[in-house]
Amino acid sequence: MRLSRYFMPTLREAPSDAQIVSHQLMLRAGMIRQEAAGIYAWLPLGLKVLKKIEQVVREEMDRAGAIEVLMPTLQLADLWRESGRYDDYGEEMLRIKDRHERDLLYGPTAEEVITDIFRAYIKSYKDLPKNLYNIQWKFRDERRPRFGVMRGREFLMKDAYSFDIDEAAARRAYNRMFCAYLNVYARLGLKAIPVRADTGPIGGDLSHEFIILADTGESQVFAHRDLVEMGAPGPDIDWDGDLEPLVQQRTRLYAASDEMHDQARFETEAPEDKRMTARGIEVGHIFYFGEKYSRPMNAKVAGPDGAERFVHMGSYGVGVSRLVGAIIEASHDEAGIVWPDSVAPFGAAVVNLRPGEAAVDAVAEQAYGALQAAGKEPLLDDRDERPGAKFASLDLVGVPWQLIVGPKGVAEGVVEIKRRATGERQTLPLDAALKAITA
Amino acid sequence: MRLSRYFMPTLREAPSDAQIVSHQLMLRAGMIRQEAAGIYAWLPLGLKVLKKIEQVVREEMDRAGAIEVLMPTLQLADLWRESGRYDDYGEEMLRIKDRHERDLLYGPTAEEVITDIFRAYIKSYKDLPKNLYNIQWKFRDERRPRFGVMRGREFLMKDAYSFDIDEAAARRAYNRMFCAYLNVYARLGLKAIPVRADTGPIGGDLSHEFIILADTGESQVFAHRDLVEMGAPGPDIDWDGDLEPLVQQRTRLYAASDEMHDQARFETEAPEDKRMTARGIEVGHIFYFGEKYSRPMNAKVAGPDGAERFVHMGSYGVGVSRLVGAIIEASHDEAGIVWPDSVAPFGAAVVNLRPGEAAVDAVAEQAYGALQAAGKEPLLDDRDERPGAKFASLDLVGVPWQLIVGPKGVAEGVVEIKRRATGERQTLPLDAALKAITA
Repeated sequence: MRLSRYFMPTLREAPSDAQIVSHQLMLRAGMIRQEAAGIYAWLPLGLKVLKKIEQVVREEMDRAGAIEVLMPTLQLADLWRESGRYDDYGEEMLRIKDRHERDLLYGPTAEEVITDIFRAYIKSYKDLPKNLYNIQWKFRDERRPRFGVMRGREFLMKDAYSFDIDEAAARRAYNRMFCAYLNVYARLGLKAIPVRADTGPIGGDLSHEFIILADTGESQVFAHRDLVEMGAPGPDIDWDGDLEPLVQQRTRLYAASDEMHDQARFETEAPEDKRMTARGIEVGHIFYFGEKYSRPMNAKVAGPDGAERFVHMGSYGVGVSRLVGAIIEASHDEAGIVWPDSVAPFGAAVVNLRPGEAAVDAVAEQAYGALQAAGKEPLLDDRDERPGAKFASLDLVGVPWQLIVGPKGVAEGVVEIKRRATGERQTLPLDAALKAITA
Repeated sequence: MRLSRYFMPTLREAPSDAQIVSHQLMLRAGMIRQEAAGIYAWLPLGLKVLKKIEQVVREEMDRAGAIEVLMPTLQLADLWRESGRYDDYGEEMLRIKDRHERDLLYGPTAEEVITDIFRAYIKSYKDLPKNLYNIQWKFRDERRPRFGVMRGREFLMKDAYSFDIDEAAARRAYNRMFCAYLNVYARLGLKAIPVRADTGPIGGDLSHEFIILADTGESQVFAHRDLVEMGAPGPDIDWDGDLEPLVQQRTRLYAASDEMHDQARFETEAPEDKRMTARGIEVGHIFYFGEKYSRPMNAKVAGPDGAERFVHMGSYGVGVSRLVGAIIEASHDEAGIVWPDSVAPFGAAVVNLRPGEAAVDAVAEQAYGALQAAGKEPLLDDRDERPGAKFASLDLVGVPWQLIVGPKGVAEGVVEIKRRATGERQTLPLDAALKAITA
């Protein structure tokens, strides 16, 4: 993409009502624009990042055996009356009447819709296990939306729903998602900690939140250091096999958010030098809830014995739009955003310091073409701007590599490359520079 | 994808309220499920096709220089009050009040939002031309939604908006979209005819609808046969150059839908053997509307002389979800859907006629692996079903190729391939079969 033709409206100052750093940087980098309280338009740069995160989530869901569907944003109130949640949900549910005065709502989640789909088609244990997910815009009418996309009203969510014949099978489904979630966060360059979450009236230990570490995070997290350093299970585990050991290996180590923290237990279970206290952001929540929806909504399958039983369900959510903000909270510096390569809007930027000067243009175009061919989705800064302004805006938007082409270097047969994350610079012949970036 | 693990709930009979063939086939093929009147969930097969169409549209928009953004589904009523359309829009607009009693609406289109974004950031002719598009769910509260996704209430639309300094530049933007639209339809395997559309009070000749030919189409179209046979301009035209000749070459040939048809002119402009009358479906609409929104919403840029002027705008819509139905209307037979390769949910299906028989399984797995490696996104029918049931459901869902592996063929070292579109069958060694499918 040539920056002279692009639409990347960077701002020198963030509006004063942006309180947290990710919100400030997303506005300054021209990633989003607020359309109403908690409702954002995604400008080109923001949309690119959003789509990359979405794609990582999709690939890891697919790998774990989940199947993608797409549920509509608007849902019938009647389904929620059937589950009993319509009246309970309160003011966060955006209730809508259509022209025929029928009650609709903008889905804040989709347990009812997916259970309705399931019961319409799936009648036998032979069709289980099933895990259906979708990545769709949702709406929660927060009383006080804030922190940009971190607590918006219209937000993009990946929600998966598992259906199993019994609790043991449901636990296997849960374990697959537990591992898949860790893989997602690892690919996004995040350190994620699974912490036990409150399961409310359902009980049981099958609910976890995933907290990623960020100094500017909203909540406190307490964890055994080994858990933080253990890393994700990785893509090549046996997804059809027994994942319980991988899950246990992690869940037996202490980890808790403020609400669930028990200092005495922490001190018993983790030696002092292993006790880590940090700030974090919740970016995912998985839980098993058994027959909570299948029973009132009558979602049953026939077992091997021919007798019908209610399916056991779980649900698994990742805030995709929230992750854009969370990654920035976890990865930024004074100059702006520092994108992990996996979600960077552009893999590299070619900075032409003297657009219009033929020899410089030629090298810049050559570099740009080579990076395109290598699949790095480069940005070419061909704007007629001061070098300082170019560097400042590219640092701000966080492109992982800059390849800088100026008249002096061109005369000497070299270019400069800069790694955004470290600030490290090297002066190299173009070939070597391209090799370093595409390595 | 292994069919035994997939979720493709095909039905023997379509519900009786599905009146048109695409709606019937989408229900029978397990592509969609109705959630409310005119509101559908997309089941895995339907979603795959929807995403492929979306991606074709995206690629052609990008190629033509448009830049993708994403506007939220909900919009502020105040913006529509500013343009003057809030009260005019009538009952098709879904009006919503949030918990603070603020007026929102579910966007049926986005001229107001995009104009607001434009005016916030773009102040100079130097930043023009700009064409910003998005692919987002929209809502029109049709009084009587019907025909499945062809006239739904919640629908996926690609809407692009061009901004130019004057009418001449706006016409160039229009021409780029005119050519891009023809390229989109060609890639989707459709024969599209651009017909002049009513521009209403704005006047001028700069509005076209694109009608694709389908015997079961909703409207009549009259056209010079040469136009139908001319084909699309193709991707390699000079998008920055003068596209007027390519547009003129097409628009000078007679083409009209029923509303605009003038039989006398038709007979004057097309010799009898060139007069084609056919059924068709409207799948796109582009128009130039000058200062219609920029003036009331005060979207101005400074020209080269420093004086500010209102930008000239156009908008360009493609019904992405509607296209799923339209393609089926244009391409089906007695047995079901016949997908063009470009949007087929799976590139090929490997039909294992004897799952569990080791020699047959081995060949089926080998074929499946080879097709995966070749990027054909194959489906493996490993279900424990009668061959007839397998063929019927694969014909119904319209996978372009079937590669059939049975015990007799395996013993003889051959498999059978069948091309869905023609029914043509060949018995070949596996290598040759794979070569034919991946050619």
